[in-house]
Order: sequence, then structure tokens, then C-alpha cells
Amino acid sequence: MNVAVVGYSGPVDRPPVCEIAQVCVELGTELAKNGYTIVCGGRDGVMELVSLGARRVNGTVIGVLPREEEGNPHLTVKIRTPFDNVTRSLVLIETSDVVVSVGGEVGTAIEVLVAYAKGKPIILFVGTGGWTDRFAEVLIEGRFLDSRRNVAVHKARTVREILQLLEAMRR
Amino acid sequence: MNVAVVGYSGPVDRPPVCEIAQVCVELGTELAKNGYTIVCGGRDGVMELVSLGARRVNGTVIGVLPREEEGNPHLTVKIRTPFDNVTRSLVLIETSDVVVSVGGEVGTAIEVLVAYAKGKPIILFVGTGGWTDRFAEVLIEGRFLDSRRNVAVHKARTVREILQLLEAMRR
Amino acid sequence: MNVAVVGYSGPVDRPPVCEIAQVCVELGTELAKNGYTIVCGGRDGVMELVSLGARRVNGTVIGVLPREEEGNPHLTVKIRTPFDNVTRSLVLIETSDVVVSVGGEVGTAIEVLVAYAKGKPIILFVGTGGWTDRFAEVLIEGRFLDSRRNVAVHKARTVREILQLLEAMRR
Amino acid sequence: MNVAVVGYSGPVDRPPVCEIAQVCVELGTELAKNGYTIVCGGRDGVMELVSLGARRVNGTVIGVLPREEEGNPHLTVKIRTPFDNVTRSLVLIETSDVVVSVGGEVGTAIEVLVAYAKGKPIILFVGTGGWTDRFAEVLIEGRFLDSRRNVAVHKARTVREILQLLEAMRR
Repeated sequence: MNVAVVGYSGPVDRPPVCEIAQVCVELGTELAKNGYTIVCGGRDGVMELVSLGARRVNGTVIGVLPREEEGNPHLTVKIRTPFDNVTRSLVLIETSDVVVSVGGEVGTAIEVLVAYAKGKPIILFVGTGGWTDRFAEVLIEGRFLDSRRNVAVHKARTVREILQLLEAMRR
Repeated sequence: MNVAVVGYSGPVDRPPVCEIAQVCVELGTELAKNGYTIVCGGRDGVMELVSLGARRVNGTVIGVLPREEEGNPHLTVKIRTPFDNVTRSLVLIETSDVVVSVGGEVGTAIEVLVAYAKGKPIILFVGTGGWTDRFAEVLIEGRFLDSRRNVAVHKARTVREILQLLEAMRR
Repeated sequence: MNVAVVGYSGPVDRPPVCEIAQVCVELGTELAKNGYTIVCGGRDGVMELVSLGARRVNGTVIGVLPREEEGNPHLTVKIRTPFDNVTRSLVLIETSDVVVSVGGEVGTAIEVLVAYAKGKPIILFVGTGGWTDRFAEVLIEGRFLDSRRNVAVHKARTVREILQLLEAMRR
Repeated sequence: MNVAVVGYSGPVDRPPVCEIAQVCVELGTELAKNGYTIVCGGRDGVMELVSLGARRVNGTVIGVLPREEEGNPHLTVKIRTPFDNVTRSLVLIETSDVVVSVGGEVGTAIEVLVAYAKGKPIILFVGTGGWTDRFAEVLIEGRFLDSRRNVAVHKARTVREILQLLEAMRR
């Protein structure tokens, strides 16, 4: 099962990324340990930390890169595209079976909404800030991102809860 | 100046579109009368009503269509693409100088966020429901869609206010 | 009917473009006079000359632009895209009903082959050099670009012959 | 090093694919044995045979799939895209360092030309028919696909020659 992790870009040692660094590394490690392939945008920020965590336990990390981007050093598969950040995100989401959202600015928000539009389940890692928490506040009936109600959006407060939700989906 | 109008798709005689039908036609007419070129997704719903309004006064309406879509009958320029709804929206937004959002489900939300990511000013036609009103509620400092604050998001309650905002941008 | 004109890019006063400049302007003028909407890549070279010719008689010229490109000054509709030259060509071809090829390097060759893949009729303006003449030499059974034979490729030696072929297609 | 293999699609037990089946499997096996990651369109025909050959020796095969395509059973990494065959080919080529062309109809021809446009070296496996042999006939100065001469196109008659060329590029 391919799990996309989307979230803040930016330097890993500066806010807002540094504030959630540990939990991102843990998320990567636990996803990899449990046999999930991680798909991400391949760049810095949350993407880099999750990739790092996965690589510590020899996991597979696919990075779908925008044009002229080398990607972080922890990717096991680099998919280069001729596209800008937004267009390449469409490939990233299509390649994933489920999306985990961690913090994030507008690019992350687009990825979550594209996932929803494509009927892919979403897990909001609440408490990580940015659009992840903003989406959690505006969910329709606590579960949907628009009135078509085409796929459920889940909230998780810990890495453990994320894994439990994924496990239930895998069955 | 190219003004994108994004919003609900769906039949124009059924909710939620029928409830805002008159104001959508009026928006199309007034944009065209004031010399704006309208860019839209070319399909039904808000797109069709705005196109209809613009054609009544001989305006120009560019429809950027997804694959295998004929478009509504009021378009003056049809841009066909080989893409799905979301991918074709990237062309729609890039071609626009400013985006007006009217109601809307997740597809509209993606278009608004892509506009923001690209630094295009946005006008939320508040009171029209859907993601337009949802965005109005979660704006950071009442004006931004993420903490990078890269372009202002405006709110308007009437067609007249929309025209005033556009006029100010045109100068 | 939307007629794509694809061909050499580059400065219009230098070879190879300057050698076919007059006939390109004439092509633009005659297409516009006969009521065809011209679709092109919107840049310099053959695109600029055809656009110029069309504008002399008040024709409509749609330019489908790659990212960060302003386009030549003769376009009546500018479609901006977030894409590189090749990706934007996919939109250009999809928007066209038939493609006229004039000279051209590898970018033109891609546009002709994409048209063929999409089942759009092609007119090779033979004698204009580049891939247009190269395709003319390798046609299967003098008419096809691969063994699937899914759409006919025509050869024309003059602007008049191009117009006759288009007229026959329009009927 | 990522090596794209492009070529005929279609059933592997029917012409023209069945006529080159053995050599395609051998190509996949030898590329994998020599440590190359294979990138392909992930579908049937040459893609399937090369994937099969690579999997026999535990190689890595990335398939970049068009929308709603499951891919052949030998892929180790499936990259799903929301795109049609042509648009997804742009990702396939961008992800590759060099392209090997085997037979092929118009889709293959587009992939070879996109590679050339992007400055990626190309190896034509001559004698395999289709556009691979057609390109070999029209090369400018025996080496280029247009007069810009931006990257060399090589010809190889055997799998061994392909490996020698790749080895020279790797250095």
C-alpha cells in the first residue's frame, strides 16, 4: 500500500518544521516498519524528515519531484517530472492509496483536496498546524471536505492512531 | 484583464446552483460590460450562467475544457485539453489575472488555492455557499490562505463590490 | 474550425525562418480570410509570422504559451500555461481540428506526431524544410505516420493547396 | 542510472511484438544484471517483455502508467498518473537518464523525440522495425534528430552493443 505523506516544505531546523521534526521522523520509521511504501514530494521539510525516518529502517520512499529538483538524500526512487510543484503533486496523489497530512501551507492543502477529489482516504495528523488543522476545523459532518461526501477524512492525534487507521484500511 | 470565475458545477436548475442563478448571470453580464474577458472551466453550473450573462452583452468567454467535454453553448473560445478536471484547472488559473470564487465544491477549492499559490488575487463572493464561504471563515488575518501571505484574498458581498475590487486592481 | 500552425521557432529575420517568411505571412492571411481560427504556440518564428499575417486581416489567433512567456504581439487570445514547451503543445494540438506543419525542429515533430496520435488530420507544407520535409519522406504508403493508419497525412506545395485541403475537410 | 525502454505496445504473442519477444526479454535481463533501473510505460508489448526479463534476475522496473491502467505484472514500482498515454510519457522520459528505442509506433516516436528535446541520449535498437528503424534512416549527419544537434543518437544492432554504449555513458 502506497501512503503519501504531505506537509510543510522548508528547512528542517527552522519553524514550523523543527517543531514537529521528531514526530515526522517517527512517522516515517513506523510507516516503513509496517510495510508501507511512502510517496512524497521528495523535497525538504516534512518530506525530508519522513524520508529520513523510513530510511533508518530500510524502507522504500518514492519522491515525485518538480523540474530541476534533486530531491532530499533519503529517497529510494526518484520520479522526475517536467512540471511545477502543483502539477507534479497530481502524480504524487494519483500514485498513492491514502494520504497523511502533516501541517502544511497552500501546497499541502491542494494535495489534500486533490486526494479528496480522486476519492482517496485522507488522515489529518491534527495538532501539527497549518492546513492540516484548518481542514480539521471545517470538515462537513466532521468527515467530509465537500457536500458530495465522496470519501471519508479521518483525524489522528498520534503516529499510533495513524497506523491503526491505515491498518483498518488495509484490511 | 482576464477574470476567472470558478464555482459550483451541476445542473443550473437544481440546488445549489439554481439558488444563485440570477446573481451569476448578472456577474457575467457586468464583467463583460466592463470590458473583462471571462475565463472559466467551460462546463455547466456557475460556469454556464456566467457565460450566458456575458454573451447577452456580446462579451468574450474562454472555456478551458477537460478531455471529451463539449462545453456550454455560450463560450466564445473553447480551449480543449487532454486533461482531467483538476489538471485542466491549472491552465485555467494560469491564464487568469484574478479569480472570482462563487460557491463551489472541492474542484473550486483547488482552483482558489492554485490561484493563491501562483500569486493571483482572489475575490470570494461571500454568501454564495460552499468553499467560497468556507475559505472566508478560515482566512489568516482575514486576508491570507496560508502563513506565507503571498497575495491578498478579498471578500465581496455583491456584484457591485466585485466590480469595485476589480477596478482597483486594474489601475 | 481551429487550424494549428506549427513550425520553426527562432528570430524571424534569420535562417531558416527568414527564408520562408513571406509564405508564412501569406498562410496566416489566407487562413484568416477564409474564416479559420489559427491556433499556435504563440512564440516567434513561424508562429509569429502566421500571427502577423492573420492580424493584417483582423483574424483570430490563439497562442498557447509555455510558462513565463509573453507571446508575440499579434495574438488575439493568450492561453498561459504552467508547462514547458512540450507539455503546452499537448493543449495546443487538442484545441485544434487540423494541423499544418511548416519546416520545424524536434518540437514541431512532436506536435505533428501528437496530432497523429490523437487522430487529427495533418497537412505537411512540403518544401519548407526541417521535420515537415522529413515526415514527407518517411510516410507509410505515402499517407500514414505509423502502421496503425489512424488518420491521413496530406502534402501541399502551396498556400492555395493547403486551403483546398482545408476546404475539403470542412465540408 | 535509469534506462527507459520504449517500444511497441500490444499483445506479446502477436506481430509485431512476438517477432522481437526473445530479444526484448534478453534486453531486460541484461539491463537488470548490469545494475540499471528500467523505466517504462508499464503496459504490454515491449514494455511487458523487458519487465519480465528484468524480474527474472530480480531487477528494478518502474512503470509510469496512464490513468486507469493497472500495468503489467512484472513492475516493481508503479507510478500512477491522471494523464493519457502521451502526457504520462513526459514523466517517463524526464525520469530517465538515457532512452533505448525498440520498434514502435507513433507513441514510441514521441517518446524518442521528447528525450532528444530534453537532451537525453538515445540508443536506437536497429532492426526492430517501426519508428526505431525509421529514425535511423533520417538522422542528420547520422547522429542527430534535428539541426540543433543537442544530443547524440546512437545505433546498436545487438543487446551487447546497447550495453557497451550504456557502459560508456555511465563512465
